Amino acid sequence: MLVYSAEYLHGFTRDVFKKMGCSDIHSTLIADVFIAAELRGHASHGMLRLKDYYELWKAGRINTHPDLRIVHESPSTAVLDGDNAVGMVAASASMEIAMRKASSAGTGWVATRNSNHFGIAGFYAMMALKKNMIGICLTNANPLVAPTFSISRMMGTNPIAVAIPAKNQPPFVADFATTPIARGKLAVAEKKGEKVPLGFVQDSTGKPSDDPSILKSGGSMVTLGGDRIHGSHKGYCLAAIVDILSSVFSGANFGPFVPPSVAYLPVLDKKVGEGTGHFFGAMRTDAFRPAEEFLEKMDEWICTFRSARPADGEEKVLIPGDPEREAEENGRKNGITLVPAVRDELASIASETGIQFGQ
Amino acid sequence: MLVYSAEYLHGFTRDVFKKMGCSDIHSTLIADVFIAAELRGHASHGMLRLKDYYELWKAGRINTHPDLRIVHESPSTAVLDGDNAVGMVAASASMEIAMRKASSAGTGWVATRNSNHFGIAGFYAMMALKKNMIGICLTNANPLVAPTFSISRMMGTNPIAVAIPAKNQPPFVADFATTPIARGKLAVAEKKGEKVPLGFVQDSTGKPSDDPSILKSGGSMVTLGGDRIHGSHKGYCLAAIVDILSSVFSGANFGPFVPPSVAYLPVLDKKVGEGTGHFFGAMRTDAFRPAEEFLEKMDEWICTFRSARPADGEEKVLIPGDPEREAEENGRKNGITLVPAVRDELASIASETGIQFGQ
Repeated sequence: MLVYSAEYLHGFTRDVFKKMGCSDIHSTLIADVFIAAELRGHASHGMLRLKDYYELWKAGRINTHPDLRIVHESPSTAVLDGDNAVGMVAASASMEIAMRKASSAGTGWVATRNSNHFGIAGFYAMMALKKNMIGICLTNANPLVAPTFSISRMMGTNPIAVAIPAKNQPPFVADFATTPIARGKLAVAEKKGEKVPLGFVQDSTGKPSDDPSILKSGGSMVTLGGDRIHGSHKGYCLAAIVDILSSVFSGANFGPFVPPSVAYLPVLDKKVGEGTGHFFGAMRTDAFRPAEEFLEKMDEWICTFRSARPADGEEKVLIPGDPEREAEENGRKNGITLVPAVRDELASIASETGIQFGQ
Repeated sequence: MLVYSAEYLHGFTRDVFKKMGCSDIHSTLIADVFIAAELRGHASHGMLRLKDYYELWKAGRINTHPDLRIVHESPSTAVLDGDNAVGMVAASASMEIAMRKASSAGTGWVATRNSNHFGIAGFYAMMALKKNMIGICLTNANPLVAPTFSISRMMGTNPIAVAIPAKNQPPFVADFATTPIARGKLAVAEKKGEKVPLGFVQDSTGKPSDDPSILKSGGSMVTLGGDRIHGSHKGYCLAAIVDILSSVFSGANFGPFVPPSVAYLPVLDKKVGEGTGHFFGAMRTDAFRPAEEFLEKMDEWICTFRSARPADGEEKVLIPGDPEREAEENGRKNGITLVPAVRDELASIASETGIQFGQ
């Protein structure tokens, strides 16, 4: 069996984290993020990752009983120390603090250190929507990406997520890596034995490459823009800003020192901070204009952009968040399809932990 | 004569704005921004634009005696109505308010409406550096750019500027359009009769084009990423976020309704807000950790990235802000070189206004 309901996979994921010692509340939250990734079409951040989390825990590299602490604050800001928690736990708490700060100060900004991989950034940005707030979420990640003119892997795919509520229209939800593609797409091409278009990766000398396995021989991913002529230095600026906000602001590791999010890579020799870093923002709509007016104007913005003329051969112009919302509707109705390798990983976790997994 | 000292062009620019009725303080500020653009290597936002501002004023489309008003606020936010001021005047006042809010709330965020073209975004982000704050500046702009899958010009080149102070290292200053290139580079290629690389513009059907004059025949610029495969939808997300923060937050016009920044284009029939919109942010370094610690860590970040290994054939890896700083040092020493067409425009403004201009 390869198709499962969202509820079934949610329950299994929750039970695995409970077995790892996470509380009921934390286990449910972590499962929420895993399933949101699957439903929103980002399987690379979904069940595929469960084994990585499980192995990190087995290696004693993740703390399932964290003592989350605010270590610095101002009326609109805070820094949270995640105590090496599962990323979802530190990230969700951080976003809650950002929203609480926003409730009193108009906006709230939280930098998080000593955290780990947290799944999809969009999940935390979207937490703000329920309170009619704008949500922002950034994170640094394992170094795979070279700055313009360089061959050193200095940055992660450092995503940016921004969620903005509307009135009658679905919200605007942008959630994207600051590289042309996600790492996962290289792995898919490699498994299929396919080449990738130029503009995704470079070899160990900095020459553009179409080999999806080039990272294994000293290559690196490039930043959004692809090459200098097409603006890769702008993608480098973006990835660098995300890294600095996530690390220099919080006291987490930056750039090449972000710790591996998988147990099969060793702990790095050098550290320049604590764990992985994130950055969260929440802004009250009525910190800028009456909420009703804001939401109506956002509807108008969305409708205007949705009615832009499609290019020849294209069906329609999308609003950020449209594809993920459509995927989610489909996934809730028709279930989540796992690839056999992931199904087998879940089965092996099940047999190790004694948790039931229907195959 | 084509080479002028920064001081000379500053004095001339200041005198032109005084002639237009701007106060001494406003005229000096506006000239500061013009000269900063020239010195930092963004001539497309420098003296080249003086005639546009002058013509807008002659057409009665810009207000040199603005009554700037805060129309909405919270402890960490404000909305400023620029009263149709010269963009520099509204922008500088907005950034001052953002910094004042940050002084008390840790961070400050100001959305600005009813403004106009304001020169280089980096100028306002950098205002924060003098106070050891992080500065952010965004603006929307005349629609020339199509969203992914579209042929409608819905957005401007919507720049993002972020300035972050360091201790002994020069600051990190990123200032970039959310398109592969600035509009000005198309004009330069057109004047030289050259083609441009694919990935900058598309024709009226949405087909990639190498014709730099394609905007005149229904073409449009594309977003950072270039095409869907290389992540143009991410550039679209960025440009859209900048547009929304600048307009929906402030009450300015959004996307296709941003008013022209030149007098030779007519006022648009429809408006959805007031004037052009901007968005500013200021964050105190010590809102996140002790200032000294922040600045030292930023030095470490910069030194780490500066020592990344260059690709074959490249001399060194740059930190955002390096090229502009080097250009500025050179310009202060050797003067600013104008192209003959711009020199002639300044001469014609001089003869119309009776201001002295040395040729």
